[in-house]
Amino acid sequence: ERTGDAEVVYGAGKTPSQVVELLQTLHATHPGSAVLATRLTVEAQEAVTAALPDAVVDPVGRTAVLGEPGVLRGTVAVVAAGTSDAPVAAEAATTARVFGAEVDVITDVGVAGLHRVLGVRERLDAADCLIVVAGMEGALPSVVGGLVGVPLVAVPTSVGYGASFGGLAALLGMLNSCAPGVSVVNIDNGFGAGVFAARVARRSAPRERKDA
Amino acid sequence: ERTGDAEVVYGAGKTPSQVVELLQTLHATHPGSAVLATRLTVEAQEAVTAALPDAVVDPVGRTAVLGEPGVLRGTVAVVAAGTSDAPVAAEAATTARVFGAEVDVITDVGVAGLHRVLGVRERLDAADCLIVVAGMEGALPSVVGGLVGVPLVAVPTSVGYGASFGGLAALLGMLNSCAPGVSVVNIDNGFGAGVFAARVARRSAPRERKDA
Amino acid sequence: ERTGDAEVVYGAGKTPSQVVELLQTLHATHPGSAVLATRLTVEAQEAVTAALPDAVVDPVGRTAVLGEPGVLRGTVAVVAAGTSDAPVAAEAATTARVFGAEVDVITDVGVAGLHRVLGVRERLDAADCLIVVAGMEGALPSVVGGLVGVPLVAVPTSVGYGASFGGLAALLGMLNSCAPGVSVVNIDNGFGAGVFAARVARRSAPRERKDA
Amino acid sequence: ERTGDAEVVYGAGKTPSQVVELLQTLHATHPGSAVLATRLTVEAQEAVTAALPDAVVDPVGRTAVLGEPGVLRGTVAVVAAGTSDAPVAAEAATTARVFGAEVDVITDVGVAGLHRVLGVRERLDAADCLIVVAGMEGALPSVVGGLVGVPLVAVPTSVGYGASFGGLAALLGMLNSCAPGVSVVNIDNGFGAGVFAARVARRSAPRERKDA
Amino acid sequence: ERTGDAEVVYGAGKTPSQVVELLQTLHATHPGSAVLATRLTVEAQEAVTAALPDAVVDPVGRTAVLGEPGVLRGTVAVVAAGTSDAPVAAEAATTARVFGAEVDVITDVGVAGLHRVLGVRERLDAADCLIVVAGMEGALPSVVGGLVGVPLVAVPTSVGYGASFGGLAALLGMLNSCAPGVSVVNIDNGFGAGVFAARVARRSAPRERKDA
Amino acid sequence: ERTGDAEVVYGAGKTPSQVVELLQTLHATHPGSAVLATRLTVEAQEAVTAALPDAVVDPVGRTAVLGEPGVLRGTVAVVAAGTSDAPVAAEAATTARVFGAEVDVITDVGVAGLHRVLGVRERLDAADCLIVVAGMEGALPSVVGGLVGVPLVAVPTSVGYGASFGGLAALLGMLNSCAPGVSVVNIDNGFGAGVFAARVARRSAPRERKDA
Amino acid sequence: ERTGDAEVVYGAGKTPSQVVELLQTLHATHPGSAVLATRLTVEAQEAVTAALPDAVVDPVGRTAVLGEPGVLRGTVAVVAAGTSDAPVAAEAATTARVFGAEVDVITDVGVAGLHRVLGVRERLDAADCLIVVAGMEGALPSVVGGLVGVPLVAVPTSVGYGASFGGLAALLGMLNSCAPGVSVVNIDNGFGAGVFAARVARRSAPRERKDA
Amino acid sequence: ERTGDAEVVYGAGKTPSQVVELLQTLHATHPGSAVLATRLTVEAQEAVTAALPDAVVDPVGRTAVLGEPGVLRGTVAVVAAGTSDAPVAAEAATTARVFGAEVDVITDVGVAGLHRVLGVRERLDAADCLIVVAGMEGALPSVVGGLVGVPLVAVPTSVGYGASFGGLAALLGMLNSCAPGVSVVNIDNGFGAGVFAARVARRSAPRERKDA
Ligand SMILES: Nc1ncnc2c1ncn2[C@@H]1O[C@H](COP(=O)(O)O)[C@@H](O)[C@H]1O
Ligand SMILES: Nc1ncnc2c1ncn2[C@@H]1O[C@H](COP(=O)(O)O)[C@@H](O)[C@H]1O
Ligand SMILES: Nc1ncnc2c1ncn2[C@@H]1O[C@H](COP(=O)(O)O)[C@@H](O)[C@H]1O
Ligand SMILES: Nc1ncnc2c1ncn2[C@@H]1O[C@H](COP(=O)(O)O)[C@@H](O)[C@H]1O
Ligand SMILES: [Mg+2]
Ligand SMILES: [Mg+2]
Ligand SMILES: [Mg+2]
Ligand SMILES: [Mg+2]
Ligand SMILES: [Mg+2]
Ligand SMILES: [Mg+2]
Ligand SMILES: [Mg+2]
Ligand SMILES: [Mg+2]
Repeated sequence: ERTGDAEVVYGAGKTPSQVVELLQTLHATHPGSAVLATRLTVEAQEAVTAALPDAVVDPVGRTAVLGEPGVLRGTVAVVAAGTSDAPVAAEAATTARVFGAEVDVITDVGVAGLHRVLGVRERLDAADCLIVVAGMEGALPSVVGGLVGVPLVAVPTSVGYGASFGGLAALLGMLNSCAPGVSVVNIDNGFGAGVFAARVARRSAPRERKDA
Repeated sequence: ERTGDAEVVYGAGKTPSQVVELLQTLHATHPGSAVLATRLTVEAQEAVTAALPDAVVDPVGRTAVLGEPGVLRGTVAVVAAGTSDAPVAAEAATTARVFGAEVDVITDVGVAGLHRVLGVRERLDAADCLIVVAGMEGALPSVVGGLVGVPLVAVPTSVGYGASFGGLAALLGMLNSCAPGVSVVNIDNGFGAGVFAARVARRSAPRERKDA
Repeated sequence: ERTGDAEVVYGAGKTPSQVVELLQTLHATHPGSAVLATRLTVEAQEAVTAALPDAVVDPVGRTAVLGEPGVLRGTVAVVAAGTSDAPVAAEAATTARVFGAEVDVITDVGVAGLHRVLGVRERLDAADCLIVVAGMEGALPSVVGGLVGVPLVAVPTSVGYGASFGGLAALLGMLNSCAPGVSVVNIDNGFGAGVFAARVARRSAPRERKDA
Repeated sequence: ERTGDAEVVYGAGKTPSQVVELLQTLHATHPGSAVLATRLTVEAQEAVTAALPDAVVDPVGRTAVLGEPGVLRGTVAVVAAGTSDAPVAAEAATTARVFGAEVDVITDVGVAGLHRVLGVRERLDAADCLIVVAGMEGALPSVVGGLVGVPLVAVPTSVGYGASFGGLAALLGMLNSCAPGVSVVNIDNGFGAGVFAARVARRSAPRERKDA
Repeated sequence: ERTGDAEVVYGAGKTPSQVVELLQTLHATHPGSAVLATRLTVEAQEAVTAALPDAVVDPVGRTAVLGEPGVLRGTVAVVAAGTSDAPVAAEAATTARVFGAEVDVITDVGVAGLHRVLGVRERLDAADCLIVVAGMEGALPSVVGGLVGVPLVAVPTSVGYGASFGGLAALLGMLNSCAPGVSVVNIDNGFGAGVFAARVARRSAPRERKDA
Repeated sequence: ERTGDAEVVYGAGKTPSQVVELLQTLHATHPGSAVLATRLTVEAQEAVTAALPDAVVDPVGRTAVLGEPGVLRGTVAVVAAGTSDAPVAAEAATTARVFGAEVDVITDVGVAGLHRVLGVRERLDAADCLIVVAGMEGALPSVVGGLVGVPLVAVPTSVGYGASFGGLAALLGMLNSCAPGVSVVNIDNGFGAGVFAARVARRSAPRERKDA
Repeated sequence: ERTGDAEVVYGAGKTPSQVVELLQTLHATHPGSAVLATRLTVEAQEAVTAALPDAVVDPVGRTAVLGEPGVLRGTVAVVAAGTSDAPVAAEAATTARVFGAEVDVITDVGVAGLHRVLGVRERLDAADCLIVVAGMEGALPSVVGGLVGVPLVAVPTSVGYGASFGGLAALLGMLNSCAPGVSVVNIDNGFGAGVFAARVARRSAPRERKDA
Repeated sequence: ERTGDAEVVYGAGKTPSQVVELLQTLHATHPGSAVLATRLTVEAQEAVTAALPDAVVDPVGRTAVLGEPGVLRGTVAVVAAGTSDAPVAAEAATTARVFGAEVDVITDVGVAGLHRVLGVRERLDAADCLIVVAGMEGALPSVVGGLVGVPLVAVPTSVGYGASFGGLAALLGMLNSCAPGVSVVNIDNGFGAGVFAARVARRSAPRERKDA
């Protein structure tokens, strides 16, 4: 058994009514947890809003959530540099929460502005798992990973042009990070990073509470 | 402070005497923990054996360890298919232990022999973090990740020929894994996987012991 | 002579009326066998339906078939994981049947759900040739090829994003399969796999019937 | 059960004595069939010759065979252009025979000499499965596949320089073959092609003999 | 001086009226030769037809020609397999003629149908320079180059899908051709091949006529 | 018949005695023309020198020539920038001469020294076909091709490091040349360029002599 | 402090009203300098023109500038071959000026027309930093860099087709330039080149004026 | 004339005696400046030391310098993370000095140790041009470029393994740097960066001295 894992609808290539139907069905069979839909087109988002008033739709992360996750355990910090990477960061944050972790979103933290990174160091240290989202050269995970010893999942994004080759530059940068303890997921895969980080955070949580 | 992280000598490009000297110096300044040297040439391994009789040298993983890690917390399972991937698996296992986690090494577990995978399922489930090492098509993490909900770090190896392109095929396979909760490190980077997994395992450990 | 091979219209880059006309002409000159059209746009499918009421149009596989194949010999099993790979699997299945083989379609069989794979093992074993369709990391052929000794043609699909690089990850994975007896066709080339597998199956068929 | 498949030792990365020992052990446990070792270094070939006088060592294909395959069924034709591709062709031929098929080796058949190709057409047609080995531009499978309707496995080789990129040019050429019914294995993977083709040929055999 | 070379308008990225204006201006300043426009959009073709009734517009090759080339010398044969490659073959043929050579267009000549290739051998031999256009695996130049000793310029096209990678497979195949005397131009560059071949043919021509 | 084409031994992968024997045999069967051997190791060059005193061995181009080409017709100019590209230029020059053309070798002509290029313009113009050899960025063919209207075959070399990727940068540069009338052969393929250019030059020659 | 650097709005992915608002805000807080917006869609350009009548909008370079840069120091020469590369050259020129340098734009200077390059040599020599923009084979920086000793920033553009691979050919060519003193920015990154060159030029300026 | 530029011998592919002879000749013809030799093998370094006692040989950067550069003007700061990148950093530093600039070498400055970067900020600010050398993910230029407004030339190195692909990861990272004002040279090209930076620094120098 994998307590905390949620049911998910992968919206890419599905029609709006297929998404609505799958959300309804999964919610009916898993009433005690949240159901997540990702990669929703604008049309699918509108169909969910219209058909399922209880669903929470996020147009930035292109997700919909129906139902509530159970007790949240542990904390995932999602770190991103700017607005371009926001959709991937939002997908990661929503996923981590639906998969059972508290989420701390830290934005506007870029490589070219070290003081902002240094300023959030305590929040980074307090997390049980970090998700660091970056496009272009993908250097942010190295900088963050050099500061704190928390497990860090890096998410390259397809943000960039020319020699970014659709996120390849960021992906290769992250795989070659000189900071140890950095692992990487697919380009734009906020969902995968969210699942991974929530699993780590949920396991880590009792540590904080063991004296309670 | 990052309790549990060890000092490390990256042996690639260093002379045998540089390796010996660095191990000695780091051991002197960190007497209460283990010091790790990786990527050692045969010459460097011999120099360490000769000069530092207390060091444990592993010719398979090409590592040397001087000193003892502190109390081990949590368990990392290292899974690999065969003898070709053994050096990377050994580097991962030694690193995870030096970085403070118990290690369970599970070998001869390949995609083309599902019964062996199914047979070790309980050991997989019992771990706090999995390291799955695979070359060629790199499919093992998907199979293992489909069985258990434990955080999983995949390590592609450069084992293969032709269209494996030095590990690229395995790397891409792992990044595209259909099993969620899989993250990836650089080709042949057993060290990075070991650091990452030990950090996850150390955090997870108190859970098992909280009633004690 | 290549008994069993069918005439084919490759629909990509052809106008609807060109497709209709070619189907008609080929059917007239080959009345005793089926004629196949592949890669049909929605417009071409509609034109075929309107002009040739006897044609069987498959909107999933984007094919049209006019006429009946002769006696089917041998069995091709087409295995695929999910709905995203369905168009390629359907193209393969239709092609194999038009080229003279019985077809057994086995869906919802994915790497991350081994029990379903194990559950269809007898159907896999009973086939004369397997076509295994998979996108993303393309690991399914290795798993299936590890279970049975039937000749296996793997078809990578362009399903995926980011580091799937349009099917490259699946292609490389399949070429590096650790299961022997796996051969590979071009990305999304259900047609080529169908031709190949039908040729194998037609040759194999007498084995099953030799005591009859 | 997979009647006809043989036990195999993959010699790459194994010491000569490991190869000898594995051959002996597998031969002892499978006395009724042949055991194959591939990718043998010159040293391993010499060790096998010295220790196992009954073994047949092929320095061109870098293989050793101990024991005899059972009754051979069906015919695999192995087609190659020249001496550069000979090692891969030899590995394919030996493998196909050890895996239970008759083998017809057809050499000196190149794209730039069509008359030789046309001259062997009957032998091509008589085979149950073709293995076509080619380096550089890898065009031979298209030419052969345009002549006959026999299932064809293409093996790209790493023969070439510059923009052959270690066999990539031949691999891509074969994957894009305009002749249908062509499938492809990894660069230099004569072994995989041999297993595949032998499985096809063994199944096809009864056809030839059904009136007997 | 380069007698025979024509003025050219590269239509990509130009508006219809820019194309018309450039054709008019160049024609006015070079009244004794033909002016060529390539890569014309449908809109640009229509604008040329409307504004310049003397221009010859080719919708297949997407070219327009205004004025007449001078005396044609030598012969360029343009060889292509099928309708998909027709636009590139047409661009090559028109360019070669505008640059001063007679052109012999030979179509429906593919690798998978050797008899048709053999059937046009005399026309191939009679040319002063060959242009061979092919997509997918790009094998046709090797086959043609193996038959005749005429200088041969190969043009890879972007026709194909999946592992054709936009013409890369054909390009690499042609660069690695086992037939000597094959040179290659950029993917889809019928224009460049036409200029090159016309220059060769114009120089070769006097040979044929020297006894006159 | 292809008057002027010579017999060739491709030395790569052949033993010194194989090379000697092949040269002898081909020379015996083609006494009236020259026989060429390319890609000779130092050992093969020494064996040829020792066994065949009449052979002309070129250690720079790694070639050996036995016998004399017939009457030379037309002129090939071989242009190269410096000493690094000299082996490829020498292979091209020797090949062009053995295949029946006069050769004019023009060295020390680089992109970064335009005055030297401008200074040899008349020799460039006087040639019937140009071979331009360049490594690194491969820009020389564009510069030369912008000056003269002679057919130009560009040969990229593997000279360079880092992002030259074994000649890929030069190859791509030449394929994208903004000068029309440039065609390209494989990386380091001086032989192929020599065959091509000699064929062009031999055809062009009578022009110069037609008044004679 | 970085005197001379300007505030910038990166327009890609921003709505027209976001662009307008950011320009206004930054202009209000930095009244003494110019504010630059790049990568503007046609819609954003129209919105800026309508809302900010003082802004200078350049539809070629897709930029808008609000306010005036301070005293210009030093000169940046922007060199480009033709109209296709004009957008990138315009972005570079506008950026360099907004970042505080005089700009000399030199167009119609291509590799295939050396006399035009030689004709502008004095303007090249007079600059403090050169920006050389080129697509296709990207050879222009080598030619210019071979003429003058001024620091040179090369900008590859995505202009081209086929084997230009979206600017990769030009990028690799520039990185491998045989002219020393050439550095390179990302494909189509006129902005980055403009910032870099302006910084160089501003520093260089006092040299020219030191006797004043 | 390019005052300050030096004569250079590129040692790759040259014999020790060729290097010695070229250094001597160039020194004789340019007595008032320094002559530089790069990429020297150990043998060439020894030959230079033996034959030219006045030469300064650097075994780390593999360079030799004969003679003294004239008056140094401006300052180039060379920044590198560690010992692996030291050879490239040393080649850059020696080149910049030989080409006429003062050089400030700043080592042990890595992305994963931000405090060291922040600690050298004044030295970075004081330079006229920065050379930042980094392998693996190549993130250091982004971090440094985010701190100071000095022109910055980034040098990717081939240090790394696996997905560093010989320096490609670092190269792509630097080309996609989110810090503006970063330009890039070829992998391991310390020489090119040194020439470029010295040219910038020499031009900038009078600024510092204009009140003198
Ligand atoms: N954004 C995403 N990226 C990758 N995989 C996803 C994403 N969202 C959902 N998935 C996976 O898709 C599965 C559901 O697929 P489906 O049944 O096609 O809706 C989930 O169990 C997830 O493993
Ligand atoms: N030349 C080869 N290329 C690829 N795989 C091979 C080759 N030879 C043997 N194998 C595979 O390697 C397996 C044996 O591996 P091992 O146990 O390491 O000796 C066999 O079952 C084959 O599947
Ligand atoms: N289809 C084509 N592909 C590549 N280059 C071309 C093509 N058509 C024309 N050109 C080149 O473009 C030049 C004219 O470019 P432009 O001045 O922009 O019209 C001609 O001189 C040719 O060298
Ligand atoms: N390390 C280096 N990397 C790239 N180019 C270099 C290097 N060292 C010298 N060069 C170039 O090589 C030229 C000398 O080449 P050569 O005449 O072959 O010795 C110099 O003028 C430099 O432009
Ligand atoms: Mg970023
Ligand atoms: Mg494996
Ligand atoms: Mg799949
Ligand atoms: Mg071949
Ligand atoms: Mg074709
Ligand atoms: Mg060069
Ligand atoms: Mg250009
Ligand atoms: Mg580094």
